[in-house]
Amino acid sequence: MNFKNGLFITLEGGEGSGKSTILTNIIEYLEKNNYEVVKTREPGGVRIAEDIRNIILDKKNTNMDGKTEALLYAASRRQHLVEKVIPNLKKGKIVISDRYLDSSLVYQGYARNIGMDEILNINLFAIDNTLPKLTLILDIDPKIGLQRINKNSQREVNRLDLETLEFHNKVRKGYLKLKELFPERIHIIDASKSIEEVTKDCIEQIEKLLNE
Amino acid sequence: MNFKNGLFITLEGGEGSGKSTILTNIIEYLEKNNYEVVKTREPGGVRIAEDIRNIILDKKNTNMDGKTEALLYAASRRQHLVEKVIPNLKKGKIVISDRYLDSSLVYQGYARNIGMDEILNINLFAIDNTLPKLTLILDIDPKIGLQRINKNSQREVNRLDLETLEFHNKVRKGYLKLKELFPERIHIIDASKSIEEVTKDCIEQIEKLLNE
Repeated sequence: MNFKNGLFITLEGGEGSGKSTILTNIIEYLEKNNYEVVKTREPGGVRIAEDIRNIILDKKNTNMDGKTEALLYAASRRQHLVEKVIPNLKKGKIVISDRYLDSSLVYQGYARNIGMDEILNINLFAIDNTLPKLTLILDIDPKIGLQRINKNSQREVNRLDLETLEFHNKVRKGYLKLKELFPERIHIIDASKSIEEVTKDCIEQIEKLLNE
Repeated sequence: MNFKNGLFITLEGGEGSGKSTILTNIIEYLEKNNYEVVKTREPGGVRIAEDIRNIILDKKNTNMDGKTEALLYAASRRQHLVEKVIPNLKKGKIVISDRYLDSSLVYQGYARNIGMDEILNINLFAIDNTLPKLTLILDIDPKIGLQRINKNSQREVNRLDLETLEFHNKVRKGYLKLKELFPERIHIIDASKSIEEVTKDCIEQIEKLLNE
């Protein structure tokens, strides 16, 4: 099944909120129901965007300024959008992205105190008018989230994982603040529940959108 | 000799306008006159800024979107500013940079048609209020500029050198337009003259500033 101008959905949440697993479950559900879906995450396999991401996540770069980081995320986002998201939306597909604009609003704008307005400003430059139709925020207490990550030690620890718990608490608060700013687009999902329940809650929101 | 809040000067111009040579001559003159001078160019030996620059100039990246490029330049500029320009200005030094903000206004804003306003917008985010006190634009017909580069083949050809002559003509026009937008800060120098004359014209403008 196809949509005239595609359908853009984003998934957001702090470390260990279970985003990857939930995303896989959502995709599986949609494909079973014959939707054409593209699963992506920034930088999404787009070479230029990957190169930019590598600079951001490099553990050597502890002296990276917050505004530098914000501009790099916006640059990576732009290239991923132009090369991957927009072409697939034009084909009428559902594009679901693990993280997008809101991550920058929360991580750089709120948690690093640069200001959500300023981060929104440079990101609107980067994305033109391509805002998601629906954003699901997987909300979880960072203590629990980080415990989940430590158990699942297959993933390599990167620079952002090394932030303090206080930082991750701020990230969570920032996400909840976003809901106030964009009440229609954003839905908060309680990610402390079981994977099955969280998946069900997410699909419920997506179904609402599909039936509109 | 030192300045209370330092003195920030930038040098701008198209390919082959002789910026590097002129810059060396200016520095030599100022040091002879006992000024403490820091000569720099973006990315200025700042590792993070260098890494960003490498992505921009990589010949493989022919599919880089114009807005991606603009955001990368702003990111590189930010890091160079924070790590190198501002600390030296705080020490009261004269900092002279080969290229800065205006390069983006002209190359991305004007020549690539993204719009000078939009590029100024993201760059004001990047530089806060650190505008140069004086900007010298070395103006030359791109045909002559590119001939100079071809003769001086020690430098490796990068992605920007491969642009068409039409592009470089637009760059020149953009620089002249900047003078209208910032008539006080910017001075146009005729770079078709001999190196000695161009150096003299540049130093004349700097002297005016030093005597203020």
